[in-house]
Order: sequence, then C-alpha cells, then structure tokens
Amino acid sequence: MQAEIITIGDEILIGQIVDTNSAFISKALNKIGVSVYQITSVQDDIAHITKSLKEAEENADIIIITGGLGPTKDDITKRTICDYFQDTLVPSEAVLDNIKHIWKTYIKKPLAQVNIDQALVPSKAKVLMNKYGSAPGMWMESNGKVFISLPGVPYEMKALMEDEVIPKLRKTYQFPFIKHVTLLTYGLGESNLAERIETWEDNLPSFIKLAYLPGLGRVRLRLSAKSFDKNLVETEMESQIKALLPQIEDIFVGFETDDSIEAIIGKQLTALNKTVCTAESCTGGKIAQLFTKNAGASKYFKGSVVSYATEAKIDVLQVPEALIKAHSVVSAPVVEAMAKHARELFKTDYAIATTGNAGPDKGDSDAEVGTVFIAIATKDRVYSEKFELGNHRTKVIMKAVNKAFEMLQKEILKK
Amino acid sequence: MQAEIITIGDEILIGQIVDTNSAFISKALNKIGVSVYQITSVQDDIAHITKSLKEAEENADIIIITGGLGPTKDDITKRTICDYFQDTLVPSEAVLDNIKHIWKTYIKKPLAQVNIDQALVPSKAKVLMNKYGSAPGMWMESNGKVFISLPGVPYEMKALMEDEVIPKLRKTYQFPFIKHVTLLTYGLGESNLAERIETWEDNLPSFIKLAYLPGLGRVRLRLSAKSFDKNLVETEMESQIKALLPQIEDIFVGFETDDSIEAIIGKQLTALNKTVCTAESCTGGKIAQLFTKNAGASKYFKGSVVSYATEAKIDVLQVPEALIKAHSVVSAPVVEAMAKHARELFKTDYAIATTGNAGPDKGDSDAEVGTVFIAIATKDRVYSEKFELGNHRTKVIMKAVNKAFEMLQKEILKK
Repeated sequence: MQAEIITIGDEILIGQIVDTNSAFISKALNKIGVSVYQITSVQDDIAHITKSLKEAEENADIIIITGGLGPTKDDITKRTICDYFQDTLVPSEAVLDNIKHIWKTYIKKPLAQVNIDQALVPSKAKVLMNKYGSAPGMWMESNGKVFISLPGVPYEMKALMEDEVIPKLRKTYQFPFIKHVTLLTYGLGESNLAERIETWEDNLPSFIKLAYLPGLGRVRLRLSAKSFDKNLVETEMESQIKALLPQIEDIFVGFETDDSIEAIIGKQLTALNKTVCTAESCTGGKIAQLFTKNAGASKYFKGSVVSYATEAKIDVLQVPEALIKAHSVVSAPVVEAMAKHARELFKTDYAIATTGNAGPDKGDSDAEVGTVFIAIATKDRVYSEKFELGNHRTKVIMKAVNKAFEMLQKEILKK
Repeated sequence: MQAEIITIGDEILIGQIVDTNSAFISKALNKIGVSVYQITSVQDDIAHITKSLKEAEENADIIIITGGLGPTKDDITKRTICDYFQDTLVPSEAVLDNIKHIWKTYIKKPLAQVNIDQALVPSKAKVLMNKYGSAPGMWMESNGKVFISLPGVPYEMKALMEDEVIPKLRKTYQFPFIKHVTLLTYGLGESNLAERIETWEDNLPSFIKLAYLPGLGRVRLRLSAKSFDKNLVETEMESQIKALLPQIEDIFVGFETDDSIEAIIGKQLTALNKTVCTAESCTGGKIAQLFTKNAGASKYFKGSVVSYATEAKIDVLQVPEALIKAHSVVSAPVVEAMAKHARELFKTDYAIATTGNAGPDKGDSDAEVGTVFIAIATKDRVYSEKFELGNHRTKVIMKAVNKAFEMLQKEILKK
C-alpha cells in the first residue's frame, strides 16, 4: 500500500516556512504499514495542484493533501479538489457549529462571511472534524483511491491524523506488517561503521532494508522490514539484530524509540522519583527547553540557571572568581563547580552543567571554537568530560546537548 | 527563471527527519529572483531519482538535488546522476585532499576505501568544495539547464549554497527583480483581516501576489512582486503598501525582515549597549535558547533562571513564599517579582519573566490551561500582561515566547 503527500502553499516554496507536516504524516503512515512513495510541495495554483493530484493518483492508493484550507483568497485547495472530482460545495452543519463555537469561545468577534464559507465542503466528502480550528478535514473516495485533505496548521493536522485519519485507514484497508528498528551508536563514523558491518549488510534478506542516519556525533542504523507475513518479519528481524550486535558491541548505545532521549530520561527519572536541574552556558537553555517541552516535566525538572555571562557564573551560581581566573571559564573545574552549585541551589538529585565555546569567535575564554566541558553532579560526586565538537555554532550546541543527555542517562542507569 | 528542488532519502519519506533543506534553498533562490516551482522528496532508488530528474527538467531551468551523497551503500545519488548524464566517475584530487585533511584533523582514524571513493565525481561535473564535510557539491550543465547536487547534512548544504551555488548562479544568469515585503500584524484574525482589506487586495496589479501567513497570534501579510522592470516593482510595491497601511494602522507591528524577532532585539540591544536576562517558568528556557542561538549574544544576553518548580521561584529568584500563597504561582504579582529579582540577580537593563500553565493538565496553580503572565522589568518599573493562549501545549509555549519578545521590543523602542 503506497501513499503520496502533497503539501500546498507558496509559503513553502519561497522558504518562509519549513514543511514539518510531511514528516509527521509519513511517520504515522509508516507505523501502520503504508509506505510513502513521494512528498510533493506545490504552489497555491489550480493547475499545479490538479497536476500533482493526477500524478499522485498514478503511484499511490492514498493521497494526503495538507494546506490551502484557510478562509482567505489565496487558499484554493478546497475548490480545486471539488473541481477535480466534478463535485459541488455544500454547507456542513457540523462544521458550521464548530466554527460558531470557536468564534464564541475564543475569538469573541462576529462571524464574517469568509468564516461561514469554511463550512462548505464537497458533497461527496466525509467531514473530519477539526477540534483546534475552523478548517475541516475531508475524506473522499474515488476509483478505489482515498484522497484526504487536511489543514496546514501543524497541531490541527496532527490531531486530525491521530483521531480521524489513521483509525479510518485501519478500518478501510488490510495493511502489510511493517517493522522499523533503529540502533543508536556513537563513537564511530558512518564509513568506518559501514566497512565493519559490510558482510552482514550484504547478506540481509531483500525485505529488510538498512539505512545509515549520521548526525551530530551519532550514527543511527535503521532496519526496515515489511511483509504480509508478520511471523517472518519478527523472526528475521530478531535474528539479524542478534547477528549484528556482537559486531557493534563497543559503540552500541541502545535501541531508539519514538521518544527523544530527553523524554526517555524524563520517564526514567519519574520512575525513580528523582529530579534534575541544569546550569547552562554554551547550550544557552536548550537542555532546559528540551526537558520542559514534554508535558509532565515538572515531576522531575526543577529548573536551570543559564549563566551565559561570566558574571552570572559568579553571581548566580557562586562559582569562585579565583577558580575562573586560575582555569578559565571553559574548564573542567569551572563546569564542575557550576554543576555542584546548581544541584545545591535547586535541591535536585542530579545536575548537568555545560561551558564551552560554540563559536564563531572566541568568547570570554581562550578555548578553541568547539571545545565544550560537560559535568554531571550527583549526591556523591561531580565529574566532567571534555569534547571537541567541530567549528559550526548550531552543530556545537546540539552536539553538546546530546552529549549532556547521554552522560546523564549513563549516570541514571548506574543506579 | 524557475527551479525545482529534489530531496533524496528514505529517512524523509519514513518521517525520521524533517526536510529543512528545501526551505533554506527556496529562500536563498527567491532572494535572487528564482522561483521554486516544486519541491519533491523521493526515495533512495535509482528509478525514482531518475524519474524525478526528468520531470524537474521539464519544468525548471535549475534543478537542485540534496542528499544521498554519503559514503555508504544506501546513498546512490552520485551514481544515478552520473548515469543520467551518461558520464563516468573520475577521482577529484581537490576533494581527496579535503577528505584527507578532515580525517587527519578531526577523525584521527585511517581512511577507509568508502571515504576515498567519496572523491569520485562525474567527469563533466564542476566540483563545489564542502568545507564542513567529505561529500563534495557538484555543478553540471546539460541542454541549457543546470543540475546542482549538494550533500543532505544541513550545515554542509547551507555553506555550499551561500559560498558556491548562489554566487555561481548570479554569474551564469540574468535574474528578474523580485521583492518580498512582509507586514507583521497582530490582534486580528486572518479572516477578519481579509474582509477588512478586500477592496485593496482585489485591486493589486497582477505581478504582485498577496499571501496571509497566520500563526501563533500573528498574521503576516506577504506581498511578492516580480518583474524584470526593477523600477516598476519598487514604485508599485511602495504605493500599494502606502495604500494598505492606513487600513491596518491599529494592528500593524512592523515590517518583517529575514531576522527573527530575537535577532532584531539583539541588534537593538547591542546598538544601545543594553543587556537583558530572563526568568522563565512556563517557557522553560526557550527565550534564553532563542537569544543564545545567535552568534554574539554574549554582548546583550547575561543569562536566565528557569524556575520551573515553585521552590525554584522561592529559592533561586527570591520570590516571597507569602506572595505565591496569596496570589498563586500564575499571577501578575509573582511574574513581576520574578522579573524584578532576575534583573537584580543578573544586573541587566531589562528582564523578561514568564509564568503560566501550558497544559495539558493544571500544574502547581489553579490557572486554566493557556493562562500566561509575562512581565518586563526595567530600571524604572515593572509591569505585566495576562494572556489566554489556547489549549495546545507547544502552541501556548511558542505564543508566550512571541508575546514576551513583542513586549520587550515595545519597551526597548520607547527609549
């Protein structure tokens, strides 16, 4: 079963927004055994949308379209789809009620005609109710293919995918069994890793594909198996992983789940009833922000001091000025003092601290661009590691964040 | 002049990574007057890549391909492109030298054959040197069309676009003049805004397009004009904006530049020689992280206390416990105390503080999900505003961050 995704909007093609919807939709489809053949981003233009619908219909059974459903003139998706199916627009009572409810509760302004028009849908479409906005999702079937139109606003689209589209696809089709397993490794580059496991890779059965996903100090190995024979997928995947593991023993960190490392740490800390705080210099609050992105973070995350300026390390974190003078602000003693004092300040079980130079220029210290120290403090000890993380600012910050999470996770798992 | 972007990689189609490259490339092309007709994400598959190259060649003059250039077996872009042009792969001395340099300086391991093979390029290709990685960019011309192949790693691709591709395109072609102007508004929804400016919109000349870009409490109006007549674009754009502004006077915030609001604030603070810090609860360090993402942030950003737990507000920010008990942790007096104490702690000119409930559940307070208080502290005064930011966690956080930046910018511009 194959799908295609069409994202509509000039704002994508002029680079004003990044299309994050496609990745979300692809992941959701893959999980239920639907492969995505292609993702196409097209203009708000009747001819272009029509052409992409035709092409997608040739390759795919399921066509998901996002965007172009707003109330304004530049959004023409609904009319184009309606013409594509030689259908007419009719008002949907349920959608109009939803729009009225939103306007009454949140907008608190009178409904304009353009909003009332959002309740118009093609007569053959099944409406998918949008609980976060006024533009409805639509499900249309034609010649054994399914066309699904969703609003482009990410959180509206996500809720519709989860609550409506996926359950309805499961009801409509029988899907092959699909299984992705991702092995997280670090410490060996992509090419060295590929060389090491070449023989194993060459002997993989044809229904299992391998991909290398390198990034910021890690290489993820993704195995994807797909077959209607669930048993075959399960046994073969298991035996292939069993054969691989001894070959990557020294660099294998764990299996990757859908959860980010910070979400996994959050669950581990919650289960252990432990808490964490951070003292961030070069990572500038990114670690705190990633922890607090997850609902329920208040159970284990107490807070952070982002001590970006050297004075802040002295004034807020009580790092002794003499220590900074003796070792420089980017040093093991300073990062360890940051972690120790942060842990005391926030009264947590663990503290993470970072200091380094993310570039592009040398900052308050003599440290080379890319030099980062990361410390972990616990009740019993404080320790740190030094890393050289390259010469690209964003990359240095993100690598440091990843390393910090890895160090903390190792520490937690020791217990 | 039209371009197409083809991004290659199964990891995009299974949703493991978000394709951010296309937005970057689109923006860079649009700036020099090249429209992007379509963005297509395809599989690591010879037939599929070949098909997409053929289709792109029909619509576009410039075809930019990213991804699939790694050293491993699943990366087949280079061989496919080589076959497409009926060319052969030959070793490039310059690329091999670069690879040797990277291995010697950073990797510190012996070169494997797969790495040496990365120096192979189609004989007709002009090599674009990659200063951050081993995979070279390639520039090929055929039948008056240009094909550019770039690595998929975002920071490698970005550097190649800026240093090689854009300058070389400018040398090769004469581009039409293009101008985008984005007007930032807040306080009125997309549909109400559209109704208000309907007559003006209907009378826009055909070479100026208008788009509504709603998001997180703001609506951006983007005007795009394109013509070989630079003078026409300039005068008509100016007169259209002049006609529009009085109609949106009450909701117009400013013109949007390529810079994010936090980068603009950073420049304004640097020019004024002023500093800022933050005390963040519900925004969890996101404001600090956005400030410190920008190089040079240490000039104006001193630090942050992320006081996620109530105890942290008391222990680290010295908010009186009695104040919290009297008003609740999500309240104007508490957020103002947070801002005031943060400003004193970090010795800055300005402080931003946030407290609120981002959901999904009620936290340490009785505040409704979506209720957020934001305070600004200056030398002379502290004040706060209350916002209701909806029922979606990520949305609440990002809206609060936007509001905080808007409040700070207003305060700075008062001076």
